[in-house]
Amino acid sequence: MTAPRTGLELISRVTAAGELELSLVEAEVPAPGPDEVVVQIQAAPINPSDLGLLLGPADISTARVSGGVTTAKIPPQRLAGMAARLDQPLKVGNEGAGVVIAAGANAQALLGKTVAVVGGATYAQYRTCKARDVVELPAGVTAAQGASAFVNPLTALGMVETMRREGHTALVHTAAASNLGQMLNRVCLKDGIALVNIVRSTAQASLLRELGAPIVLDSTSDGFTAQLVDALAATKATIAFDAIGGGPLANQILTAMEAAANRSATAYSRYGSSIHKQVYIYGALDLRPTELDRSYGLAWSVAGWLLTPFLMKLGAGVAALRARVNAELTTTFASHYSATISLREVLEPEVIARYARRATGEKFLIDPSK
Amino acid sequence: MTAPRTGLELISRVTAAGELELSLVEAEVPAPGPDEVVVQIQAAPINPSDLGLLLGPADISTARVSGGVTTAKIPPQRLAGMAARLDQPLKVGNEGAGVVIAAGANAQALLGKTVAVVGGATYAQYRTCKARDVVELPAGVTAAQGASAFVNPLTALGMVETMRREGHTALVHTAAASNLGQMLNRVCLKDGIALVNIVRSTAQASLLRELGAPIVLDSTSDGFTAQLVDALAATKATIAFDAIGGGPLANQILTAMEAAANRSATAYSRYGSSIHKQVYIYGALDLRPTELDRSYGLAWSVAGWLLTPFLMKLGAGVAALRARVNAELTTTFASHYSATISLREVLEPEVIARYARRATGEKFLIDPSK
Repeated sequence: MTAPRTGLELISRVTAAGELELSLVEAEVPAPGPDEVVVQIQAAPINPSDLGLLLGPADISTARVSGGVTTAKIPPQRLAGMAARLDQPLKVGNEGAGVVIAAGANAQALLGKTVAVVGGATYAQYRTCKARDVVELPAGVTAAQGASAFVNPLTALGMVETMRREGHTALVHTAAASNLGQMLNRVCLKDGIALVNIVRSTAQASLLRELGAPIVLDSTSDGFTAQLVDALAATKATIAFDAIGGGPLANQILTAMEAAANRSATAYSRYGSSIHKQVYIYGALDLRPTELDRSYGLAWSVAGWLLTPFLMKLGAGVAALRARVNAELTTTFASHYSATISLREVLEPEVIARYARRATGEKFLIDPSK
Repeated sequence: MTAPRTGLELISRVTAAGELELSLVEAEVPAPGPDEVVVQIQAAPINPSDLGLLLGPADISTARVSGGVTTAKIPPQRLAGMAARLDQPLKVGNEGAGVVIAAGANAQALLGKTVAVVGGATYAQYRTCKARDVVELPAGVTAAQGASAFVNPLTALGMVETMRREGHTALVHTAAASNLGQMLNRVCLKDGIALVNIVRSTAQASLLRELGAPIVLDSTSDGFTAQLVDALAATKATIAFDAIGGGPLANQILTAMEAAANRSATAYSRYGSSIHKQVYIYGALDLRPTELDRSYGLAWSVAGWLLTPFLMKLGAGVAALRARVNAELTTTFASHYSATISLREVLEPEVIARYARRATGEKFLIDPSK
């Protein structure tokens, strides 16, 4: 096997004129250095965390194709935040999997192996990268099965690890029927951790219950607030990971945590309960502002949470998480895709409209070899 | 000197019927145990942190006096949060100072000394407490000068200490012309720490500039946003202590911190800058919700901040802070009062209206011996 000299890769560009441009370019495939490999990508997921780089703040209802390039307008008020990426051709795709078709002198053992890849630029036919950025998949695991071996699995484990490190013993998760949420549910069931799942429809609630989740609350149901206080009092969950971000939900969770804490309070505290209540926002399914009425004393925190800095903080501890993911890749950390599309299809307006919806249960896999 | 058998103390009660009741009661003055002292209180400040316990969420425009008791209505929607204190007679006053008029066997050295007191119930003529809850004031320092020796000084030092412990090197303070703000300004000038002062009027800005504050921004002025970014870029301040709480200010600070961080960024980061941006809310001058539009990546946190848990975390380190406060009580940590009132006056509706305004520069001292 030898790597071809060139291959297609997907490029996202935001122009100073206020347009998003998506294109496929024929790019050079660098020959591998001594510690490098060339992977022929066979599967790369479209994660919510990829969409920001891929689509920027474009209004995708304006997407048009011309000469093989897809363009969409960016609302002027959102262009200011893009200053740092204007006119730069950016490669996309946080992770993926494929076969090693060329390897440097120190990486020959990987030749021919199916590996998972992390580090960006996976929406491409070929990816030259350091051998340390790939993980050999266990025997019998396909590229499609290994395509999501990093972001979602390490995020689920990162949430549990954050919970433990910050002294909490149970947790809350929102948008809990997502691929990530199903994974977190399996981790918590396996590890005996109480998880309060919050979803936004009866269909999602049923889905999670069928997957064995003991506590599933529907935030659109009438009794939600009271049920949430009950669940928090029963589990003593004082940390939440929130994929929604905007609107009232983060505030509802903090308010319910305070009410649950006060159920066991023995004396009035003028500053609210002394139990620390934490909400980490890691997604933005709702783009509205987060509104905090601060009716829960002063022992609370709302903060952003992102995988990469967490892993950097964890340092050498990451290896143990990666080993667990690899061992349980087709069980605890299995991902499900609603469709597999080609690189070309990623640029089609009607396909963009589908994957940009971020609908629960709809997850796309790109196969650049299609 | 011997302590009287009884003395007046101020009681705040929230009734189940939805009324605040403020009264003065003739209460027993307990004889001191072996490790206790009786302090005749001569000065106790009305701090913003006292107002929550004193007035609860009462609508003070409805305050009326009848039979020596002041009552005011509590809006029904705010009564729910009061469940834990309903119908309880609560003593008020976080701190104060006075003369030790009786002392137990192990505390005789304090007899006749002017001391500062912490631990509550200082809105009273006499206070029996543990000797460890008082600090002897330096020679020549009056009770009025020592009345605010704990809350504001330790809060100012606690902010600086929090800044250091969390890896920041400069800080932002809002409502910065307050007694606390002036104190923080003196601490930062003395310790060579860059402090970005944010105030809400030109008068407050002038006041702070006259006190030597190098950076004072008026959030009501036209160029505020740009000036804030400049100040944050120059000082590299990435932590703010916010007394306002509600409205847009916390979000403006985070947005400006991100813009300042991006000025020195060398590459586009899809998740915003990796520099952690922290806002601690320690007050509620604005009762509206805090609105966070999250346009500053994921490396941010907004959290409540309260002195007592911080001091508990600090543990033995508190002694060094207290020693510094005592040594600089009439300089760095001097407080200024706009009026000295009697216990009886604390109950008068027109006086309540004044101290409840929490206006910058207006701070009340109670002298229970008046």
